[in-house]
Amino acid sequence: MIKTMEQVTTIADIRIHIKEAKREGKRIGFVPTMGFLHEGHLSLVKAAREMCDLVVMSIFVNPLQFGPNEDFERYPRSIERDSEMASSAGVDLLFTPDVNEMYPRPILTNVSVANVTAPLCGASRPGHFDGVATVVTKLFQIVQPDYAFFGQKDAQQVAVITQMVADLSMPIEIVPCPIVREADGLAMSSRNVYLSQEERTQALVLSESLQQAKKWLEEGMALGEIKDSVIQKISERPLASIDYVEVLRFPDLEPVTQEKTGQSIMIALAVYFGKTRLIDNLITEIR
Amino acid sequence: MIKTMEQVTTIADIRIHIKEAKREGKRIGFVPTMGFLHEGHLSLVKAAREMCDLVVMSIFVNPLQFGPNEDFERYPRSIERDSEMASSAGVDLLFTPDVNEMYPRPILTNVSVANVTAPLCGASRPGHFDGVATVVTKLFQIVQPDYAFFGQKDAQQVAVITQMVADLSMPIEIVPCPIVREADGLAMSSRNVYLSQEERTQALVLSESLQQAKKWLEEGMALGEIKDSVIQKISERPLASIDYVEVLRFPDLEPVTQEKTGQSIMIALAVYFGKTRLIDNLITEIR
Repeated sequence: MIKTMEQVTTIADIRIHIKEAKREGKRIGFVPTMGFLHEGHLSLVKAAREMCDLVVMSIFVNPLQFGPNEDFERYPRSIERDSEMASSAGVDLLFTPDVNEMYPRPILTNVSVANVTAPLCGASRPGHFDGVATVVTKLFQIVQPDYAFFGQKDAQQVAVITQMVADLSMPIEIVPCPIVREADGLAMSSRNVYLSQEERTQALVLSESLQQAKKWLEEGMALGEIKDSVIQKISERPLASIDYVEVLRFPDLEPVTQEKTGQSIMIALAVYFGKTRLIDNLITEIR
Repeated sequence: MIKTMEQVTTIADIRIHIKEAKREGKRIGFVPTMGFLHEGHLSLVKAAREMCDLVVMSIFVNPLQFGPNEDFERYPRSIERDSEMASSAGVDLLFTPDVNEMYPRPILTNVSVANVTAPLCGASRPGHFDGVATVVTKLFQIVQPDYAFFGQKDAQQVAVITQMVADLSMPIEIVPCPIVREADGLAMSSRNVYLSQEERTQALVLSESLQQAKKWLEEGMALGEIKDSVIQKISERPLASIDYVEVLRFPDLEPVTQEKTGQSIMIALAVYFGKTRLIDNLITEIR
């Protein structure tokens, strides 16, 4: 029997599938996405495939997590291509609601997470993580997964969701998956499609400077100096405009007050190329 | 076989019971309480008993929903008596976590609901409904009920939870249950125990003025005049100090802009007797 992927667009319809899977005792794995799929998303599906009996993917460009001057309208969308990729990758159930299905009336409920949302993208994009926490909570209520899979490229998002799941005792295990990169090192992102050829070339400075930072760390360079050197290195690219370069304690994203051996840290970058904002990060420890 | 009630104090333990009930396809009914049970709570258990296969009650005095100068510390507690009452009423599973079990670390996640939380108790008790929405979300994640039962005495709470469940697509049906009153009309409340004999007598003005308001409404009195008359009536009791008297559209708790026949409205009262704050309400429609 060839198993075919089911695609549903309404909450009522997906509930029917979920109920049946629960009744059959299936372990449900969930991969929430905003679509325009790439190898990063497919690696999440692969991880879900290995751990679960039913793999559910959602594709929903969530307006709540975009600021008023951000790229909600022009965010790349390609449901047909996504659907084929999801099916090939082993998704069992694809949930593709439109905005009206998810928010038939203005949503009055907001889920917010303090502390871990304060630095980095939380500081640059006010309200972003409220939008993420709220939609992920809603999707979790709809899909009721046993496991949910998130990419470490959005490491702060993983930290926010992990905190939220623990705080609210959601019966879900969050599985963070490694960043997937292009052959030349650029972290995969749906937003890479925005880049001009010249921007694409200069954007390599993100992964390159993270690799360089790791070497500097191994050589014993102090964190403050590493941060300054990364800023210097990125600034040499004329099309790059730095949003932030930060070195924080991981996973609580607090400032590093003491440089102790074995302390997990994250070096996180957000850099604009034109209107395109790219992020990348490296999680490592102090030697 | 005599069915005995199970009592558990940890999230890990209740999850075992819930998992088993889910596997057996049982419909789970949930009655969240702060304990010091009275007939109002037991009416919720009765409703749950009729609709569900497994009735779960929680008893947890939730610090998040008390303001800094409110009665969290002195809120009446009596777990042993509660446990006997719950068992007699037909509760199958009693969940009595302590604060450390529910909030082992300071909780960083907050669930808030806009609009319906703005007037009435939301205005008088800043942060109260954030605390309610957050703990109810957490309890819902733990108990995973099919139905949850709430008393209409806390009508605004019912409105907040109903809004939250709809907004976040929680797979739960909220069942509001009628206010249960003492023989003389006083709405049952765990806080009634705070009242001195004289306060208890004068507190009858709440239910009496609501009944009077209903008559006035039937006689065609305008809502503004009804509100003023209720304030007048309560003010005649020397020990009464009004927090609010409001007439609002129901269930969205917006101001009544047009007095249309058939329009559902709520007349809601909060009145202090000494340090004890009592609430009561009447939901009816404009004739």
